[in-house]
Amino acid sequence: MSALSEGLTQILIPLASLVGIGFAVLQWFLVSRVKLSSQDSSNGYKQKLIESDEEEEGINNLEISIKCTEIQHAISVGATSFLFTEYKYLGIFMCVFGAIIFLFLGSVKGFSTKSEPCTYSQGNTCKPALANAIFSTIAFLLGALTSVLSGYLGMKIATYANARTTLEARKGVGKAFITAFRSGAVMGFLLAANGLLVLYVSINLFKLYYGDDWEGLYESITGYGLGGSSMALFGRVGGGIYTKAADVGADLVGKVERNIPEDDPRNPAVIADNVGDNVGDIAGMGSDLFGSYAESSCAALFVASISSFGISHEFTAMSYPLLISSMGIVVCLITTLFATDLFEIKKVSDIEPSLKRQLLISTVLMTAGIAVVSFFALPSEFTLFNFGTEKEVKNWHLFFCVAIGLWAGLIIGYTTEYYTSNAYSPVQDVADACRTGAATNVIFGLALGYKSVIIPIFAIAIAIYMSFSLAAMYGIAVAALGMLSTIATGLAIDAYGPISDNAGGIAEMAGMSHKIRERTDALDAAGNTTAAIGKGFAIGSAALVSLALFGAYVSRAGIKTVDVLTPKAFIGLIIGAMLPYWFSAMTMKSVGSAALKMVEEVRRQFNTIPGLMEGRVKPDYANCVKISTDASLREMIPPGALVMLTPLIVGILFGVETLAGVLAGALVSGVQVAISASNTGGAWDNAKKYIEAGVSEHAKSLGPKGSECHKAAVIGDTIGDPLKDTSGPSLNILIKLMAVESLVFAPFFAAHGGFLFKFI
Amino acid sequence: MSALSEGLTQILIPLASLVGIGFAVLQWFLVSRVKLSSQDSSNGYKQKLIESDEEEEGINNLEISIKCTEIQHAISVGATSFLFTEYKYLGIFMCVFGAIIFLFLGSVKGFSTKSEPCTYSQGNTCKPALANAIFSTIAFLLGALTSVLSGYLGMKIATYANARTTLEARKGVGKAFITAFRSGAVMGFLLAANGLLVLYVSINLFKLYYGDDWEGLYESITGYGLGGSSMALFGRVGGGIYTKAADVGADLVGKVERNIPEDDPRNPAVIADNVGDNVGDIAGMGSDLFGSYAESSCAALFVASISSFGISHEFTAMSYPLLISSMGIVVCLITTLFATDLFEIKKVSDIEPSLKRQLLISTVLMTAGIAVVSFFALPSEFTLFNFGTEKEVKNWHLFFCVAIGLWAGLIIGYTTEYYTSNAYSPVQDVADACRTGAATNVIFGLALGYKSVIIPIFAIAIAIYMSFSLAAMYGIAVAALGMLSTIATGLAIDAYGPISDNAGGIAEMAGMSHKIRERTDALDAAGNTTAAIGKGFAIGSAALVSLALFGAYVSRAGIKTVDVLTPKAFIGLIIGAMLPYWFSAMTMKSVGSAALKMVEEVRRQFNTIPGLMEGRVKPDYANCVKISTDASLREMIPPGALVMLTPLIVGILFGVETLAGVLAGALVSGVQVAISASNTGGAWDNAKKYIEAGVSEHAKSLGPKGSECHKAAVIGDTIGDPLKDTSGPSLNILIKLMAVESLVFAPFFAAHGGFLFKFI
Repeated sequence: MSALSEGLTQILIPLASLVGIGFAVLQWFLVSRVKLSSQDSSNGYKQKLIESDEEEEGINNLEISIKCTEIQHAISVGATSFLFTEYKYLGIFMCVFGAIIFLFLGSVKGFSTKSEPCTYSQGNTCKPALANAIFSTIAFLLGALTSVLSGYLGMKIATYANARTTLEARKGVGKAFITAFRSGAVMGFLLAANGLLVLYVSINLFKLYYGDDWEGLYESITGYGLGGSSMALFGRVGGGIYTKAADVGADLVGKVERNIPEDDPRNPAVIADNVGDNVGDIAGMGSDLFGSYAESSCAALFVASISSFGISHEFTAMSYPLLISSMGIVVCLITTLFATDLFEIKKVSDIEPSLKRQLLISTVLMTAGIAVVSFFALPSEFTLFNFGTEKEVKNWHLFFCVAIGLWAGLIIGYTTEYYTSNAYSPVQDVADACRTGAATNVIFGLALGYKSVIIPIFAIAIAIYMSFSLAAMYGIAVAALGMLSTIATGLAIDAYGPISDNAGGIAEMAGMSHKIRERTDALDAAGNTTAAIGKGFAIGSAALVSLALFGAYVSRAGIKTVDVLTPKAFIGLIIGAMLPYWFSAMTMKSVGSAALKMVEEVRRQFNTIPGLMEGRVKPDYANCVKISTDASLREMIPPGALVMLTPLIVGILFGVETLAGVLAGALVSGVQVAISASNTGGAWDNAKKYIEAGVSEHAKSLGPKGSECHKAAVIGDTIGDPLKDTSGPSLNILIKLMAVESLVFAPFFAAHGGFLFKFI
Repeated sequence: MSALSEGLTQILIPLASLVGIGFAVLQWFLVSRVKLSSQDSSNGYKQKLIESDEEEEGINNLEISIKCTEIQHAISVGATSFLFTEYKYLGIFMCVFGAIIFLFLGSVKGFSTKSEPCTYSQGNTCKPALANAIFSTIAFLLGALTSVLSGYLGMKIATYANARTTLEARKGVGKAFITAFRSGAVMGFLLAANGLLVLYVSINLFKLYYGDDWEGLYESITGYGLGGSSMALFGRVGGGIYTKAADVGADLVGKVERNIPEDDPRNPAVIADNVGDNVGDIAGMGSDLFGSYAESSCAALFVASISSFGISHEFTAMSYPLLISSMGIVVCLITTLFATDLFEIKKVSDIEPSLKRQLLISTVLMTAGIAVVSFFALPSEFTLFNFGTEKEVKNWHLFFCVAIGLWAGLIIGYTTEYYTSNAYSPVQDVADACRTGAATNVIFGLALGYKSVIIPIFAIAIAIYMSFSLAAMYGIAVAALGMLSTIATGLAIDAYGPISDNAGGIAEMAGMSHKIRERTDALDAAGNTTAAIGKGFAIGSAALVSLALFGAYVSRAGIKTVDVLTPKAFIGLIIGAMLPYWFSAMTMKSVGSAALKMVEEVRRQFNTIPGLMEGRVKPDYANCVKISTDASLREMIPPGALVMLTPLIVGILFGVETLAGVLAGALVSGVQVAISASNTGGAWDNAKKYIEAGVSEHAKSLGPKGSECHKAAVIGDTIGDPLKDTSGPSLNILIKLMAVESLVFAPFFAAHGGFLFKFI
């Protein structure tokens, strides 16, 4: 038996969630103390300046403050209006897909309301298949709503914080950093805590009906993961297309043709670009990581429910995944204090180490946290089921599984940093290749991306082997959870990036001084690297999560082996491995086409609006926002349909074995494409920034802005945009979502699937 | 029993080989009738001109003829010297690896010379393991030598034909086409016939020792495939780096910086570039396709040897794979006549259809050929072994297997053409994206490459499913053979491309008129598309071959299932899927670094040699040749080592199951990377040519040469060079070679492998 009582577990999990939410609110309150457009700035959050004792320029400049507020407002309105339009589409999707879930799962036993003998807990009766259909649908809707809420709240706080960060940058880089980071933390904690709370409440409510039928209970709960991930898919893809169409379009005309700086207010696409950061990098990423979190929890819970805890109804042990997440919130809370209160950012070069330290601190603390949870929540020995065989597992085995996942995440994060930060030789080599033009820059960048998959794949492979050896599929599920246990910190770091990016944009648009722009640029550069790290985490965890879901699917579909030597599985494998390419082709082409439209519109405005280049007349921002909105909403449908329909079509036509092959193929191939795409894009972006910043002798020899080398670097950066912000990060959703969808529909496929083969 | 007697089989196979060799010699003789630098051109191959009745310019110009001869000589000397240097390295490799094969296989039973009971043919005794070690080593050496010979002969005829094609272009495009095509046919037929003959003779010689032990005989013969493919690896990688370093280097300085045309004799890298075409695209590709051919034959023979034919010693049925290849030679011979004698090329626009018609004609004729062979060579019903189970197969089942492979190849070829020829919208869209610069060109090109994998993968998947369902692994092996059965025609078309490319280069360097250059350009443009088709075939067949080898490996290693749900196999799968990326990173980076060196040298020569730009002084060609040679020989070692060592390391440390996972992962992921890389590169190349040629209104609006759009297209083309000619086509060797190496070493791994897992 577990040392922790069931009652205490029932208190601790919601408590941790509430603490997380409370902490988020506190951070939000601290950010809100930065006043916008107040009549007298001394009423605001005034303190002695860190960087210099002189009075900084513009601190009392009311005009600038008002301008910032206006720009922030425009961005916020654009983002909100896009998200609401997107949610309208998603609402329709949710209803349709919810109905599909209900009908498909209901039809497994012909909508019978009779109770049935349980599959695992032999001798007992379980709830009817119809209940599974109903509760899976409810869980799906809950997951979808929570995902949408996560994305929306993230966007709200980000657009609340960006101008505040700009204004704080007048007081020094340290102040600006804290504002941006606290805002990121609001999002991180809200998301982690909300996700946990909704899941916890749902389980308890479902239990009211399911009672002792834990098999049925946790099978239904998997719908939560599906809901979360399917929203994330559209959020990532739609947001990704939005942001990159605007970004690429703005850059191609503004920077390349017109030679005006990034974020120049004369560029008609500049507001759309900033809106894009919020809907793509913030709302999209929030939904994505929430999806991963929900799925890994569901996978772990489902596998646990058919283990000895599930059968003997040990609630505390069953709730091990939720307790790990609860501990994660506490650990991340402490970690955040290191960045905001215990250390001070005094100069630009402190920023990146401070963010990297966050990762290390949270990982170290969490390792101890996992040990505590594993010791108190688990019985010292228990039995797991592994595709028909039984496996004896000890509690410290599970400690190792979670910890391996956690540390593998850190290794992936640091590897990503090595390949994408311009402090190291890989990115510097790419920058150096710009000497001979854009072509060599691209060749070196692609090679860098390919190379950067090696270490993460070994880390994932080792994590899989060790955790599987220790605790079979449950080990892999909790390893994924381990990687995501510090999600609040990961998200805070991740969201910090786009907030800083926006802050820089606002500074430029408001016409603030070069000095302030330099500070926001420094914040942004650090954010670029941490964004790449965040994507590394997201992909690594997606790989583990999908494998865990895959394992759960195989169990639920009643497959004993997925043998590559059978043609059914092999053709699944090779077609699955092709899907990431198909998907990327769609998303890349979408960004390309939308960007071409944006380019035409921006050119048209420059050519037809007199006085625009001279800054006398404002451009028509709204038209560009509309182009991005329309393009992203229209273009997110085909890739979305590819991902959502593939498991259904394969399962129905070819059956569960081929579908298993497809999932495995998409997983092993998609991980590579995703990592290489993200890192290639990140490296090009930072190679460009390396040349622009011109910090070292080498960098100076390549620059300055506007040199031939710099132009070549800008081309690389533009190519990287859709790779790193649209197709790359959407791929983790592809692999996870197909797995969780297969898991939810497994009983249907097992009962009615594969009719094409039956026919032949 | 087969309708065809053993005696007749023993006559037909060598006869077909000799007919093929004879036909090659005849084609060579016809090419040789075009005289170089003769005193009076009327002594030569003079005929009424096809295109115009006027006397063409320069036909009697002795100076130009001598100049062409000189340039051809320089290219030939460069290519020969590179190949000999390469072969020195390869000689060392052959000795070392031959020794490894002998030692590893010998150690399986401790170098025992005692006969043993057979594995499949129960009750009989088979030859000792030591014999397997000796004969596998001999077969390996024979395969390696034949591969080297194939590459060398191809290079010789290509460098013999290129200036002749240029000179013939003075008489009209039809004449030039026939010369280039005949030369390609020399290579195609020599290679197909030689490969078959050496294999046939080896089997008969080995039989002198092995007698009735067919298991041992055909196990040893697999070494032939390994030898062929390992030479191909170094040929492809070394040649690929050579050619692209020179090409990229020449283009970046010549076309982009100095604004001089392609192949301008003032460019110091121009000879190296032309040498590269011969060592990379001709010798490398020749070795590659020979490797595929040898491997698919070996895989089919090995699988057949453990079927009922093998056990009951039916030689004719056993020789079915060789008879299919023999029929292929005859079919290709007839097909060639359609291009050279039955149809006439009258204008530029006839070229591409004529080449495409070759594919269709050979496929249609071969389908009938397969039916004949299947009916006469196979018993009407027989038994195959499929991982422990038996399967009853009819002769018409095998007809379908071979035919499915053949037609899948045609589909892949035509799809490749659709995505890489500038006659269709995909390439035109890419060209159109150049309007907004290099970045959108690259984004659209990458998306095109990703998209182009969809149909080939479905074609491969269907071929695998059908042929496996009909005749298990033997079905897949013969499907691969079916795809390669028209190899002579495929190679003729393929080799035609670089020969035309070289002919154009010689025309430019010899200062021939614009009209002639236009004709050679038209030949070259058609060659680009057919080269892409050839690569499509090579990759498609590689996928089937590797799967067949994989099946043979699994049989030989005694594995019953390769279950993705076991961690051993899964980590193999994900690491295997990573290998193509690691390999591509190495080869891309190698090309990039070598190109950078070449750029520096070319720039140095332009800057320091006075009068070079004005054409008064000759550049130092030899130095550029040396840079390419050194770079390619040095840089081919790490990727070569990755491919050759991975199966050994995985097999020894992790055992046969993980190795099976690695092979499957590398196969399903490598195919996608290879197809997308080849097609992306081909599309960029032809998008550039589309803008240059300016045939349609749309194309004219993008051009002319030197416009901003054209510059963007040149950047895309340069990026595509290493993708389509180095990393893409090397990947099929990666997947095949690891599979055949695993097959050869299977008994060793089964006996002694996996000690890391044993240790844990």
